[in-house]
Amino acid sequence: MQIDLYDCVSPLDFRYYGADERMRERLGPYVSERARVASEAQVEVALAKVLARRGICPESAAAEIEKAAGEVTAEEVAEEEARIKHNIRALVNCIRRRVRDDAKPYVHFTATSFDIIDTATAWRFKRVSADVVVPDLKELLRVLIDITRREKDTLQMGRTHGQHAVPITFGFAMAEYVSRLGNRIQAIETTAESLRGKVSGAVGAYNASAIFCEDADAFEREVLAELSLEPSTHSTQIVEPEYVADFVHALISCFGVLANLADDLRHLQRTEIAEVAEAFEKEQVGSSTMPHKRNPWNFENVKSMWKKFMPQMVTVYCDQISEHQRDLSNSCSQRFIPEIITALVCTVDRLRRVCSRLVTDEEAMQRNFDMTGGMVAAEPAYILLAAYGHPDAHEAMRQLTLEAQRSGKALWELISTSEELAPYLERMTPRQRDMLRDPASYCGLAVEKTEKVCEHWEQALGL
Amino acid sequence: MQIDLYDCVSPLDFRYYGADERMRERLGPYVSERARVASEAQVEVALAKVLARRGICPESAAAEIEKAAGEVTAEEVAEEEARIKHNIRALVNCIRRRVRDDAKPYVHFTATSFDIIDTATAWRFKRVSADVVVPDLKELLRVLIDITRREKDTLQMGRTHGQHAVPITFGFAMAEYVSRLGNRIQAIETTAESLRGKVSGAVGAYNASAIFCEDADAFEREVLAELSLEPSTHSTQIVEPEYVADFVHALISCFGVLANLADDLRHLQRTEIAEVAEAFEKEQVGSSTMPHKRNPWNFENVKSMWKKFMPQMVTVYCDQISEHQRDLSNSCSQRFIPEIITALVCTVDRLRRVCSRLVTDEEAMQRNFDMTGGMVAAEPAYILLAAYGHPDAHEAMRQLTLEAQRSGKALWELISTSEELAPYLERMTPRQRDMLRDPASYCGLAVEKTEKVCEHWEQALGL
Amino acid sequence: MQIDLYDCVSPLDFRYYGADERMRERLGPYVSERARVASEAQVEVALAKVLARRGICPESAAAEIEKAAGEVTAEEVAEEEARIKHNIRALVNCIRRRVRDDAKPYVHFTATSFDIIDTATAWRFKRVSADVVVPDLKELLRVLIDITRREKDTLQMGRTHGQHAVPITFGFAMAEYVSRLGNRIQAIETTAESLRGKVSGAVGAYNASAIFCEDADAFEREVLAELSLEPSTHSTQIVEPEYVADFVHALISCFGVLANLADDLRHLQRTEIAEVAEAFEKEQVGSSTMPHKRNPWNFENVKSMWKKFMPQMVTVYCDQISEHQRDLSNSCSQRFIPEIITALVCTVDRLRRVCSRLVTDEEAMQRNFDMTGGMVAAEPAYILLAAYGHPDAHEAMRQLTLEAQRSGKALWELISTSEELAPYLERMTPRQRDMLRDPASYCGLAVEKTEKVCEHWEQALGL
Amino acid sequence: MQIDLYDCVSPLDFRYYGADERMRERLGPYVSERARVASEAQVEVALAKVLARRGICPESAAAEIEKAAGEVTAEEVAEEEARIKHNIRALVNCIRRRVRDDAKPYVHFTATSFDIIDTATAWRFKRVSADVVVPDLKELLRVLIDITRREKDTLQMGRTHGQHAVPITFGFAMAEYVSRLGNRIQAIETTAESLRGKVSGAVGAYNASAIFCEDADAFEREVLAELSLEPSTHSTQIVEPEYVADFVHALISCFGVLANLADDLRHLQRTEIAEVAEAFEKEQVGSSTMPHKRNPWNFENVKSMWKKFMPQMVTVYCDQISEHQRDLSNSCSQRFIPEIITALVCTVDRLRRVCSRLVTDEEAMQRNFDMTGGMVAAEPAYILLAAYGHPDAHEAMRQLTLEAQRSGKALWELISTSEELAPYLERMTPRQRDMLRDPASYCGLAVEKTEKVCEHWEQALGL
Repeated sequence: MQIDLYDCVSPLDFRYYGADERMRERLGPYVSERARVASEAQVEVALAKVLARRGICPESAAAEIEKAAGEVTAEEVAEEEARIKHNIRALVNCIRRRVRDDAKPYVHFTATSFDIIDTATAWRFKRVSADVVVPDLKELLRVLIDITRREKDTLQMGRTHGQHAVPITFGFAMAEYVSRLGNRIQAIETTAESLRGKVSGAVGAYNASAIFCEDADAFEREVLAELSLEPSTHSTQIVEPEYVADFVHALISCFGVLANLADDLRHLQRTEIAEVAEAFEKEQVGSSTMPHKRNPWNFENVKSMWKKFMPQMVTVYCDQISEHQRDLSNSCSQRFIPEIITALVCTVDRLRRVCSRLVTDEEAMQRNFDMTGGMVAAEPAYILLAAYGHPDAHEAMRQLTLEAQRSGKALWELISTSEELAPYLERMTPRQRDMLRDPASYCGLAVEKTEKVCEHWEQALGL
Repeated sequence: MQIDLYDCVSPLDFRYYGADERMRERLGPYVSERARVASEAQVEVALAKVLARRGICPESAAAEIEKAAGEVTAEEVAEEEARIKHNIRALVNCIRRRVRDDAKPYVHFTATSFDIIDTATAWRFKRVSADVVVPDLKELLRVLIDITRREKDTLQMGRTHGQHAVPITFGFAMAEYVSRLGNRIQAIETTAESLRGKVSGAVGAYNASAIFCEDADAFEREVLAELSLEPSTHSTQIVEPEYVADFVHALISCFGVLANLADDLRHLQRTEIAEVAEAFEKEQVGSSTMPHKRNPWNFENVKSMWKKFMPQMVTVYCDQISEHQRDLSNSCSQRFIPEIITALVCTVDRLRRVCSRLVTDEEAMQRNFDMTGGMVAAEPAYILLAAYGHPDAHEAMRQLTLEAQRSGKALWELISTSEELAPYLERMTPRQRDMLRDPASYCGLAVEKTEKVCEHWEQALGL
Repeated sequence: MQIDLYDCVSPLDFRYYGADERMRERLGPYVSERARVASEAQVEVALAKVLARRGICPESAAAEIEKAAGEVTAEEVAEEEARIKHNIRALVNCIRRRVRDDAKPYVHFTATSFDIIDTATAWRFKRVSADVVVPDLKELLRVLIDITRREKDTLQMGRTHGQHAVPITFGFAMAEYVSRLGNRIQAIETTAESLRGKVSGAVGAYNASAIFCEDADAFEREVLAELSLEPSTHSTQIVEPEYVADFVHALISCFGVLANLADDLRHLQRTEIAEVAEAFEKEQVGSSTMPHKRNPWNFENVKSMWKKFMPQMVTVYCDQISEHQRDLSNSCSQRFIPEIITALVCTVDRLRRVCSRLVTDEEAMQRNFDMTGGMVAAEPAYILLAAYGHPDAHEAMRQLTLEAQRSGKALWELISTSEELAPYLERMTPRQRDMLRDPASYCGLAVEKTEKVCEHWEQALGL
Repeated sequence: MQIDLYDCVSPLDFRYYGADERMRERLGPYVSERARVASEAQVEVALAKVLARRGICPESAAAEIEKAAGEVTAEEVAEEEARIKHNIRALVNCIRRRVRDDAKPYVHFTATSFDIIDTATAWRFKRVSADVVVPDLKELLRVLIDITRREKDTLQMGRTHGQHAVPITFGFAMAEYVSRLGNRIQAIETTAESLRGKVSGAVGAYNASAIFCEDADAFEREVLAELSLEPSTHSTQIVEPEYVADFVHALISCFGVLANLADDLRHLQRTEIAEVAEAFEKEQVGSSTMPHKRNPWNFENVKSMWKKFMPQMVTVYCDQISEHQRDLSNSCSQRFIPEIITALVCTVDRLRRVCSRLVTDEEAMQRNFDMTGGMVAAEPAYILLAAYGHPDAHEAMRQLTLEAQRSGKALWELISTSEELAPYLERMTPRQRDMLRDPASYCGLAVEKTEKVCEHWEQALGL
């Protein structure tokens, strides 16, 4: 059944994912409704295979079921569901129709709907993580590491509270995101790997399967092994919800890192700062009415996507609560989790594209640095004064910076001409005095640490 | 551009809205991307009309723009946007292409993108509220009022903390939802009516329009009047975000009322209570594996939808924050608001269908009442004892209920044979003693209040 | 019972509210646990008064109850609750102890706990809104209006996407917050006024009170009138939750406006922009290690408080759901709502203090304006060119701004020397050409609108 | 400084934590403001020790600082902060005052405030997790395991969608919570262990410390080792926020498990189900007006606490975003995280107390089972029919259950007298037929799995 793209109501469908052919090709096999049905059919196949292996059903039945499951379409299942109002029974009916009578009983044999649904979900999320989410994140990380290394010596003013603080390099600033993103990639990998399935029947006690297998829990393990999954330690009608909750937390907290990166970059693109810029295409229009505008619209989009999807964690937390051996009130809400994956992948793709062509302006960084370059010497000055015995160095420097602001004089001028400070200055090494005169050298381990962080994550993630 | 329904990623598109032809027909003209583009085009028309009326552009230009705006398609705009990366400029270009050279300058004349976008949004939300959301809610309310009146005399045990409390009628229980839903319909109406537009230019100061109109704010008012809108009291590049925030709060708090109703009904459908039931169709399957199941799956779906969409209020609150004359970080997130409207309307539709055929079981209500019917006399007994002078009536009755539970005797038996209580019992009127013997009559104003609530909301909402 | 302030776990108690004597004096009578108990006692008094007026209990009983209720302490109630595990019964016992035997039955007569609790809550919230929240917000608004008027002519660059857009005045920028805050003050007033009480008994059907009054709903109305409240249209054991939800939404969306204001001001305090600053006290330390720092820490605090309390709306939405005639799962969560009020009032107080002494730097505004002052003429230039017949004015100006950026030439120089544009320039009025040369005059109605917004809200709120 | 408990505004302070002496004793050393200050002082001690060890400051200075840090009080620091408006500088001043002049410079030497704050936070959270949160959770788990084992053979009807499904045992139902809670205990342990500190200075580049140590990152590692912490892989002014986000996610998702447990137990306490009950004390009052009520108020409190604290995850996600080398907008919001810990511990304590005395009613479970005991045979019947060759077993049984409901006949009667089913019934084993006649034996592996789950978690957590 076709729908016109612009008749859709979800911006993911008509704009961010559905309108992007490449995205649909890569993500569709995991996040679309079609993918859902196909995954569920494959869980039925896994079940049939193990039934045959254990001699509960004939090999031929399993083979027929496998063939049939491969042929069933989402359209067909939707049509059957419209008739009988039950989505998994609809799938089962569609498979049954295609197999001979003696195979029919073994479709969905002893299973409950959520054996199929929860297992298929774990399987899809695990695969989309391994095949798309993590590789795409690693590609973005590669781009960030490249910028980070390239800029590791580029002097930049460090900023806290939006105020000039003390010097860093632009590479060091970017290393923050290398590290935090690396950390989240690990979190996504770990939690995706931990996703679990179940084949324990209607209330999780193996009531039906135990009629045919004394070791129904081993049977469950075998079926899931077909899909490289492990069983939930305990299950009711559903898998323990915390596995998915951990996975979604990893996704959403990863989204938060991207949002922070985007926020930093768009602030660095402010007209008054202008240290970085999104590259603009030749025909691109910045504003419908202000022809001179070059807006950081991609970074803004990242922040906006995060605002949209971050609160979905509340839904996941609400879905931890399901009455007794479960109520169905998590069913519809969980259908929306693939949206989070889709939004994250679209956002990663956007950031990768934009960051690959990130324009940095070293001169602007120097110019901004120079605005208050002298003043930032207040920190090393106070520390050195203290170290050389000044009884109240912090206060002394606080007074001097106030005077510098009042008088417009350079801080170094005030420091170097102060009679009170002279004895301490004399005790300093030349390099220390240089640092106060020209605080560009007051960069600490910015360069070394930048390199270490890059190396750490390259190794940890096998980049 | 067509997309296969099952390649979509949003359950709204492939399942709840997009797959339901009637829903698409009714809601599509307001919530789809196509509707967005069409609404925006109409704002350009309103602008051109007022330009002509004021003699700033020729009448013929406005007429041409109106004709062109009616022809522009969402596909075309999307294609142009792909080229120039700006959605409103793309719309403008598509309109311009269709008009003669002397009309071209007056497309989007002096406007900024968000003059168009925010105004179109207010216009769409206001119309979808008046044309679909509120009428559908009123239809549901009609159904609830009918149940409420029908059941106003049906005895039911009132329950607090899941425990039997004191008697009500089932109609009284339903009157809660009549009232709360009525109240939310008013809230939606009021906040939708209050939505505002703007035609005040790039930063809200009428910089461009003031070149051509001394009274640029009157000009804004005129353009908006074409769409039956009023201007935001102040605007930057965007309308003050609180108007939309109030509207979405009304929608989401209305959703909460529906979720509570659904929750109550599904608990009343518990096997042990069984006072109501969703009607089941003849071919409907309740469980893929338990053929005897009749699950309250529609009520569960309502709760689930609420869990999905309720947290979106967080996004709306985050979008209150936009830097200076605005940043764009609300752009993408706001594109998703029509989803909330869509989900609410689908849910209202579902509840209307299910409640229209709600099965109630008066006998079950009586049976449940009888389980503890005697015990609930503890409340009127304690109050009457107190009124007739018993010095510690609450404690006396607490002790008696404990004894009733221990001994299995009826509470009335213990009351009526208690020597201590005899003098007080004697002072009671026969009707009061009857109430203690048969607490079914201890229903207060349940019936009258039920009727009053129905009448109140019928009048208030002109049903 | 005393607790050491620093043994508290809530930052509101040990830091923001509890440690501020003035704040405790003003807010304590409404938001503290003591205030809760006192309010509940007053609802018992209102009940007794109406019982007496209707002749259900002796006048002397009501008088005794009033006296006793005034004496009961929070400590005493807590102690009794520890014994019997029921907070309202504990309050009732404490009052009963103080009155003669014949008055005892009329304490809490026919009432249920939540008649008292919900009514007291509505009463407290309504009073704290009228006595503290709204007056404080109006004081802040007064401060903002003063800044706005003072700065209405101060040229500032308008900024969208963090980029220079077109000119405004700083007053116009502040007028945004005058308007949005004014609007939220109205929202808080309206929703606080709408808060409702109830005296309809254990399940809302007046079961107990109807024994003694045929018109038990009129009786309810009378009791509530003692506290200037109206009854909930319908109630179960509790008031319809939407009244409180609307009130909290008003509070939280007001908080969002404050957060946006704070965010804007802290960005304007960025070192590179430096157009405004929090005043610093003489002894104040900006950083523990960087003596030169002057951080916008108050504005940061406002944003931070908002982040803390904004998500509480989710709790309020969850509390809309209560089973049947109610479950108690909203009891503990609702005890925290006074925290939101407290946090908001503390934040308003902080903003008022900081804004009263807000330092603005007109020169910095001019300097920033001049950075790109020429370039912003691109908008009026494109519009005027279009108006005077240029066939593709937006694209022409887009090209010219690109050239200006490449060449470093002033935009006006390029415009005024362009052969292509010459014929259109000639058609412009001198004032229009002036605007392109010196876009400081391209301010639209910034000044007039600023004044209008101030006047509008002064009148609307009776300032 | 003392505050009257009932003048507090936070229910944690006046009710749940502050009013409970034992709770204050156990948690206070970690979650109170006093604990915060004390922890921060200890980070200053760790710093001084390593300075001495490396010969940067004299041993005597470190010793003096250690002594002074142990004496500083929260009161004193608050007073100093009121003067200078900087909390860490206030602490530093308080320590400095107590040491000789030559030690003064080495208090806070080269550190920035958030070196102290973030490190102290990690240290506090890690210790409170190891000392209180995890041990308390394990105690609760112990109680749950005991119930689970005790009830592993107690027949209970399994319920899905609130409907009778197929049999389990009550122990199996409880095993769900053993497993989910066990899993969350591990999550809390792991994420607490992973919390990180930092001693990398104002922007994270070791600018100050690198003046004195070439290997400033090794120096950081040494200082943190004093507190058994590791450094953040990268840091700006603050530790990467994802470590705390993971920890809070673990806490909140653990809270969700408790809420689900409480919800299940309160539903099982519904009057019509009555399979479990909170034990009531002799003097306890259930309702202020209904003396017969025994409400599941503790379980309701658990749900309510969860509703209050669950949305705080949104705050944590918002706090992931901090501009450049950080803004301060996470400072105030993070002060509230100890509240989440406190609320969780109070809730765990409550559940442990209530579950230790949980009353279960085996007879009620049997009685409820018998209500529909026959009907649940529909599942095994359909599966066995299918296995023995029935061509459409699910539909056949669906029809039979409908007939059973219509006719009031027992399902087994219909099965055993059906001519159509007779040939399949004959093929069944006696045990299989027995299962259809008496589905109490259709319990699958409920008993074995229950035991396995208990053993698994006892081993995994070393119980």
